[in-house]
Amino acid sequence: MMKPIIALYRDLKDEHKEKLQEMAPDHSVKVFHEVSEYDLDAVEIILGWNNEWDESILEKMPNLKWIQKETAGMNAINEKVRQSDKLLLSNMSGIHADSITQSVFAFILSHYRGFYQALKDQQESKWNQTYYDDLVQANERVLLIYGTGALGKQMAKIAKAFDMVTYGVNTSGREVEYFDKTVQSDQAETLIADADVIINTMPLTRDTRNLFDAKYFEAMKKEAIFINVGRGESVVEDDLIGALEDGEIASAYLDVTRIEPLPAESGLWQAPNLVITPHSSGAVEHFRDGVFGVFSENLAQYLKDGTLARNQYSYSKDY
Amino acid sequence: MMKPIIALYRDLKDEHKEKLQEMAPDHSVKVFHEVSEYDLDAVEIILGWNNEWDESILEKMPNLKWIQKETAGMNAINEKVRQSDKLLLSNMSGIHADSITQSVFAFILSHYRGFYQALKDQQESKWNQTYYDDLVQANERVLLIYGTGALGKQMAKIAKAFDMVTYGVNTSGREVEYFDKTVQSDQAETLIADADVIINTMPLTRDTRNLFDAKYFEAMKKEAIFINVGRGESVVEDDLIGALEDGEIASAYLDVTRIEPLPAESGLWQAPNLVITPHSSGAVEHFRDGVFGVFSENLAQYLKDGTLARNQYSYSKDY
Repeated sequence: MMKPIIALYRDLKDEHKEKLQEMAPDHSVKVFHEVSEYDLDAVEIILGWNNEWDESILEKMPNLKWIQKETAGMNAINEKVRQSDKLLLSNMSGIHADSITQSVFAFILSHYRGFYQALKDQQESKWNQTYYDDLVQANERVLLIYGTGALGKQMAKIAKAFDMVTYGVNTSGREVEYFDKTVQSDQAETLIADADVIINTMPLTRDTRNLFDAKYFEAMKKEAIFINVGRGESVVEDDLIGALEDGEIASAYLDVTRIEPLPAESGLWQAPNLVITPHSSGAVEHFRDGVFGVFSENLAQYLKDGTLARNQYSYSKDY
Repeated sequence: MMKPIIALYRDLKDEHKEKLQEMAPDHSVKVFHEVSEYDLDAVEIILGWNNEWDESILEKMPNLKWIQKETAGMNAINEKVRQSDKLLLSNMSGIHADSITQSVFAFILSHYRGFYQALKDQQESKWNQTYYDDLVQANERVLLIYGTGALGKQMAKIAKAFDMVTYGVNTSGREVEYFDKTVQSDQAETLIADADVIINTMPLTRDTRNLFDAKYFEAMKKEAIFINVGRGESVVEDDLIGALEDGEIASAYLDVTRIEPLPAESGLWQAPNLVITPHSSGAVEHFRDGVFGVFSENLAQYLKDGTLARNQYSYSKDY
C-alpha cells in the first residue's frame, strides 16, 4: 500500500522538503506535478492551489483531508470545496503582515510629512516651503482598522509605537492586543467620523463587498485618509474618485483594485491625492521561508491530533 | 528697582505667557519688542534669538544670564556669545524628534516597499509588477545613526518596533536605550560596511563638516541608503551625486543642503534615486506648545537653583 502523499503545488527549498519528510516519516512528500494520475487517491494534504481546479478534485482525491493555501485569500478555491465539512482548510494570512504594514505606513507617513508635494516640487527643481505650517505628525491621530487578525494587529502595534490611537473592527467586537477599542462590524459606523486614517484589511466577504461607497466617504472627516489593502471589490471606485475630487477626504492609497491589472483607461490613475501600488504591498522577501514556517507548524499539529495550529479557514465565518 | 525681564523674542500663546508669569512672580515676562532700549539691562533671560545680533548684546544686556533658543542648531548664535562662560545656553533639540523620525521612516519604508517606482508608473497609468520580487521589509536591516540624543533615540525606538538592528554613534560610545550597539565617533568607520541605512542627525561641528564624502559612500554597501537630516555642510554633495549615479549606494534622502533654498541649477534635483524635502522634516504641528514645554521645564529648574533641566549647550563639546 502506498504512503499517503503531502503534495506541494509549488516547490519548496530542498532543505525544507527534507525537514517535512523527517517530520512525517509515514507520509511521502512530493511536488504535485510528480504525482501520477493513478496516485491521486493517495493525496492527503496539498500545500498550494491551482485556480483552475473545481469541485471534481473531491472525487479525484477522495482521501484529501487538508488544503493549506499559499496566500491569504480563499475565494480562489471553488465554493463547493470550501463548503466541504470533510476538509481542513487554511491560508497564509500573517506572513504578509510586516510587508503590508510597512507599505501602509510608507503611505501614512509620506502623506503627513508632505513627501508627495515635495516629490512634485523636486520634478520642477523647486524648493517650496509654502506647506511647511500644514505638516503634522501621526501622533494622537486615530486609526480605524477593519480586521484585527494578524495583519490588523501588526498595524496597530506599529501605530502605538507612533503614539496613535487604534480602533479595530471585527465580527464579535472582542478585545485585541494593541487596540485601544474594538467594535463589532455593525457598530463600525459610529467610529467613522472620529477616524483620521481608515484601513481596510478584510478579505472579500458578503459584508465587505462595496462597503466603501459615496455614503461612507461622506461620513469621513475631510482631513482623513482611506487605505485599501484588502480586496478591490470592497471599494466603489467611482465613488472614491468623486470623494477625492470633491475634497470629501484628503487622500487615499489603494494596493488592490476591482480589475487587476488596473486598465490604463481607469479613472483611478489620474484621481487627485491617490497613490496606487500594483497589489505589491504584501510582497515578501524570503516568501518561501514564510510559507514553510506556517505549513510546518500546522503539519506538526496535524500529525499529532488531526487539527491545525493556525490560520484555519471556516466557510460559515467566511474567513 | 525694575524686575528682571524674561524676554520672548517671538510671542507665545497668552495662556502660556500667563503660566510663565505665575511661575516667576519676581520676574517680568515681556515680548522682546516691548522691551525699551533703556530696560535692556534688566533682561536676564531670552527665549529665542535674532540672527543679526552679535557679541555687542553682552554689553547691552549686562545682566543676561540665559539664552534659550527656539530651534536645535546653535551656529546662528555669535561665536563670542557661545563662548561666554557667564551665560547659560540651551536649544530646542527634541521637540522635532517625532516629526523628523516620521519623515525619515516615510522615506525608508517608501524605498523598501517600492513606492518611488509605483509613483513613476502611476504617472504613466502603468500597472507594473516587474519589481515585485525585489521588494523587501525593514525587518532585521541595520540602521546606523550618527547622534544618539533625543532625535537619534526616537529613531532607534521606531526602528526597534520594525524589528531593525540599531547602531549609534556618539562622542563617548556610551550605551543608550533602544540602541543595540553604540560606538565612539572615531570607531564609526568600522560599522559603515554593515549598515543598510545610514542617518546623519548631527549638528554641524568640527567633526561632521564634509564627513560624508566619496570615500565614505564607497565604503557603504551597494544596497544601502543614506539620509541627512542634520546639516547640509556634512555632505559633499557632488560626491553624493556621483555615488548615486554610479550605483555605489541605492538611494538617498536629503532634508538639508549646503545652500538653502537649494538653487534650481543644483545637480541634486536630477540625481537618480534621491529624494529632497525643503528642510521640512522637522516642521512641528503645535510648535509653540513644544517651545513652551521645554522652556517652562528649564525655567522651573533655573528659578530653583540656577541650572537647566535639559537641552543645555556647551561650546567646548560644540553641541
